[in-house]
Parts: sequence; C-alpha cells; structure tokens
Amino acid sequence: MANEPEIPTNRTPTLTDVAKLAGVSIATASKAINGRSEVRATTRVRVLEAAELLSFAPNALARGLLSGRTGTVGLLTSDLEGRFSIPILMGAEDAFGAGQVSVFLCDARGDAIREKHHVRALLSRRVDGLIVVGSRTDARPPLAGNIPVPVVYVYAPSSDPADVSITVDNVGGGQLAIEHLLACGRRNIAHITGEPGFQAARDRAEGAAAALASAGLSMTGGRPYYGTWDESWGRAAAHMVVEHHPEVDAIFCGSDQIARGALDVLRDLGRNVPGTTSVIGFDNWEVISAHSRPRLTSIDMNLKQLGAIAGQRLFEAIDGGVPTSEEFPSRVVMRESTLPVG
Amino acid sequence: MANEPEIPTNRTPTLTDVAKLAGVSIATASKAINGRSEVRATTRVRVLEAAELLSFAPNALARGLLSGRTGTVGLLTSDLEGRFSIPILMGAEDAFGAGQVSVFLCDARGDAIREKHHVRALLSRRVDGLIVVGSRTDARPPLAGNIPVPVVYVYAPSSDPADVSITVDNVGGGQLAIEHLLACGRRNIAHITGEPGFQAARDRAEGAAAALASAGLSMTGGRPYYGTWDESWGRAAAHMVVEHHPEVDAIFCGSDQIARGALDVLRDLGRNVPGTTSVIGFDNWEVISAHSRPRLTSIDMNLKQLGAIAGQRLFEAIDGGVPTSEEFPSRVVMRESTLPVG
Repeated sequence: MANEPEIPTNRTPTLTDVAKLAGVSIATASKAINGRSEVRATTRVRVLEAAELLSFAPNALARGLLSGRTGTVGLLTSDLEGRFSIPILMGAEDAFGAGQVSVFLCDARGDAIREKHHVRALLSRRVDGLIVVGSRTDARPPLAGNIPVPVVYVYAPSSDPADVSITVDNVGGGQLAIEHLLACGRRNIAHITGEPGFQAARDRAEGAAAALASAGLSMTGGRPYYGTWDESWGRAAAHMVVEHHPEVDAIFCGSDQIARGALDVLRDLGRNVPGTTSVIGFDNWEVISAHSRPRLTSIDMNLKQLGAIAGQRLFEAIDGGVPTSEEFPSRVVMRESTLPVG
Repeated sequence: MANEPEIPTNRTPTLTDVAKLAGVSIATASKAINGRSEVRATTRVRVLEAAELLSFAPNALARGLLSGRTGTVGLLTSDLEGRFSIPILMGAEDAFGAGQVSVFLCDARGDAIREKHHVRALLSRRVDGLIVVGSRTDARPPLAGNIPVPVVYVYAPSSDPADVSITVDNVGGGQLAIEHLLACGRRNIAHITGEPGFQAARDRAEGAAAALASAGLSMTGGRPYYGTWDESWGRAAAHMVVEHHPEVDAIFCGSDQIARGALDVLRDLGRNVPGTTSVIGFDNWEVISAHSRPRLTSIDMNLKQLGAIAGQRLFEAIDGGVPTSEEFPSRVVMRESTLPVG
C-alpha cells in the first residue's frame, strides 16, 4: 500500500485521513463508520473503502487495545437503586464489545461534590470517556470543570445543548400507552402518575393527552391524577377514579409501581382486569410487571439499547467524530393486563 | 519530637514502627488502630499513643490523599439487579470517608472471563484494593491469577479460607425470624422459601428448624417448602399450606418477594394478617416490604454496614494489617404483618 500517494505511512491513520480520502466531512466519516442511518449508502461505501485502504482502526480504544492498553469508560450515576444504571452499563459494555472495555460505575448519590470527586478519580485513572446517567429525565447541569475526555449524558440530558445527550422520548411513550389502550377497544381512559415536579410525569401525561385528543377523546376525570411514584398512591388514586368515574375502562399508570397498586385495588373492587378495566404501566420493571395479577403490560424504555447507543456515541467522540444528541422511542411489552376486548 | 530516639525522622512512619514502639504485633497494632473490639483497652491506648507520637497517618490511602493522590477501590459484582451491590458500595464509600475514596463498580455478570478482564482493567488503573460482591451466599472461587492488592469478599465468601470474607449469618437470620414469630405468640409456623440449590435457602431453613426445635415445635408441613424466589411461588405455596394445614398461624418466607405473594393469597382467602396469620419476609427490600398490604416485617441483612465493614477490613489490609473473615448478624425490621397477637 506504500505506493498509494494519499496514505500517511509514518503514523497511525486518523478519521481525518479517512474523511479526506473519501471526500466527506469528518462528521460524515464518523457516522458512516459507526453505522448511523443518516448517511447515504453510496457515501458509506466510499468511507468504508477509504478506511480499509488506510487500515484505519475503527476507534481510539481499539488502537489502545491493539497496543496492549485496556479501554475503560467511567459511568457516573445518581440512581441509588441501580434500576436505570445497571441495564445502561450492560448495554454500553456490550456496545464496546464483550471483554474489550471495562465500564467503571461510580455512585454520586445526587451530590455535586461527590460527583466532582468521582470525576477527578476517574480522570486520574485515565478513563477514555464518561457516561453520565441521571435518576430522572429532567435536564441536569453539565459536569463541572474542564473535562478532557468525551462525555455522553444518558436518560437525563445535559442542560447544555452543545453536549451529547441520549434520552427517551417520554411524550412518545405516553402516546404509545394510550394508542395501545385505544387499539384494545378502550375509550374511557384515566391517567394516574407520579410527582408533577418530574419532567417524566409531565411528558408522559402530555403524550397521553395528545393521543386521546387525536382520537376525539379526553382523559377520564379531565386531567392526570398526579401523586407519588409508589403503590400506595396507585391504590388510593384507583379507588378515587373508580368511585367518581365508574365508566372508566382503562388506566394508564406513570410507573409499574403505581400500576401494581391500581391492579390490587381493581381486584379488591371486583373489577376484572382486563375484562372490565385494562391497566398499562411504565418502566417494564420485571420485578413488578412480570409478577402482578394479572401480569402487567408496560412501556419499556429500552434502557439497555440506550446504553449501547451511548457507548457507540462515546466511541465516535473518542474517535474525533461529532456525535449528536438523540431521543429514542420506547415500546409496548404486552402481558395479560391489556388483552384486547374479545 | 526529634529528640525521641525511636522515631525514624527521615521517612513516613509505618504500622511496623507503631507496633514496635507499642511493643505489640503488627496485627494487634492494626486491630487497635482500626477500632476492632478484640483488642484490650490498655493495649489500644498504648498503640494509639505510639501512633500519635510517630505522627502515623492511619492508612496508606490517607497517606496517598495527603500526597495529592486519590484513593480508589474496585468493586466487582455479579449482581445484575444491583440490589445487594449498591448498598454495599455505599457502605464501603462511607467507611472510607465521604469524598475521600472512589469505589469503581464493575459488573462481571457471573462470567469468569469478564471478571478477569475487569480485574485486569482495575489493576491497570492502580486501584488500592478490591471488594468482590457475590449475587448469592454460596462460596465462590477466589479471583484468578496473582492479585497484587488486598481483596475482601463480601456477601459470598471466597472458597479459600485464607481469604478475607465478610458474610451474613443466614442460619442466625432464620432463627431470628422464627424467634420473632414465637415472641408474637405464634406456634404453627410454615416456611416457604426459594431454590434449595442456594446456600441461603438451606441456611435460613436450618436456622428456622433449629429455633422451632428449641421451642419444642416443628415446621408446619414437616419441612420447608422449597421453590423459586418469586411472588408466583409465594402465592402457590401459601395456597397449598393453608389448604393442607389450616391451623397455620404464621409463615416465614425466604424472600420478600415470596412473602408478597403469600400476603396477597392470604388476603384473597380472607385470612387476616396479622390477626389470623403473621408473615415475615427476608431481605427487607423496601420496594416490596414497605408497600405490601399490610406492610411486611422482614429480616434485614444490614448490607450497608456489611459494605462499611468490608471497607474497613480492606483498609486494614492495605495498611499491612491482617484482617480476618467475619460473619455478621441480621436484624428484624418490624412492620404490620407481624403485630403481636393482642
């Protein structure tokens, strides 16, 4: 290959070299190499051919690994229960390739000083990049100080639009839940959810209201029932809804824990689920959703895939690419609590 | 202090210096400095005086911190849900002092190759020690290869008795549960638990049988009801127990999830809890225990304290001390499901 004039033989080829040879921007080269869909097939082929010609190792970490260095990524979380962080961590590791990169998780417990300390510790240990996972979907301030490695925010976006944030479309999730209930033949749908101070609660309610409006319907009770994220509220609110609106034929709950409480009360009241009333939850937390009576249909936020995407985007950035923020759809995982009306 | 003949002024004092000056063994000096109970008060005072005289910084990490280095400890887990690992991680960090040491958690997913890879990554990042957390209480093989830093095993002991393992006394936990039910006036006690392949299931059942035997009683049904660790089994087994042994007045469940299933079935069957039948769980997993109807009394394994002890022992070992394996008791967290018979 030494007779190719464009190939720099005296150093490791970079993404810039690949982009130059392919005649595209660095961002496009990065996207093509990382399999992003927004690149045209012909462009992708040109970039991949250039990369092969240059023996371009697809990322800095891979180069590190080839040189005997172990790749590591820091994952900062404030999610005390580990419910969101662990699947995101697993997804990220899988994206990096099994056994190729270690993700180090540090728990900041929602404390800015602790977070700063962990960031310092991770950076002093030469991590190649940082993934920051929030415990709620509200935007959070970017990491303080000068961070010399790429950072990707997951679940909770950074409040700085220049940062790369990988998030869930919670408005879309609320829509999805209502559309599923409508498809099951339901028309009188109430929405019981968590604290209105949470962006996730407001987003899901907004999506639900929009989907109902599109069908020419409105929420049973006229508004979402905001409360807390737990079973007790699910029970109390379900009681209230059934008492004041006996015509209710479905309840969309903002979390699986709320849904679990609603299911238990509907059972107590002798209302058959899904015969008389359908129930759908949110989170698809299997500990709850796969063991309730009946088992709970729920919106799954694809957290493992979210982690995988975050890992890929971090890779792109480590490579000198320019990844962008993205919001991903969730999906319905159907169980017995929403069997369609026969 | 330069006129003290025994003080080495040209280097950082070590634990050996302290032990020598106090006239005790290194192990005793380590125990005294780390506040272990098995050291006599007079010895402890002598060691602490020697340490003060020598300006002995109590541990290698602290010395590192004084010199501007950040202390880090690796925590290896195979606990996918993070239920056990996160409180243990928090306890260990608290033991090290808030914001002084970062614990890096790596998830090995029960896979030896992944574990080896994470260990290599952590060691290449110069962690000061390793904490290994199991997802079940069965003994596990020690970490493979030559590990140049101290290792403490938590929750699951190492199968090598020479290693330091910090574990929960599950036999004692089973005893505690039965003693609580006996104290509440119960006499016909059944035990529903998880898979007999788990040491934890066998240990808790053993403790339960022993406590019943001490009271001149035996388990209702004659043996533990082994099954799976989930609600479905709790429901099925509770049905069975009540049908075949209607005299049952208490059920000790091997996990909170099993107990939750049992509670729901007792409710369906119109058996008042705790009036007719008391129920006690195991784990004190608040998501379950604090939201059931009635709220669930449960055995708490003090995982955060277990993590704190593990952190302290790791510190001792980093200091050149010789910590030993220890097994810790659990405790009853009482809620409405076992209110004493009036």
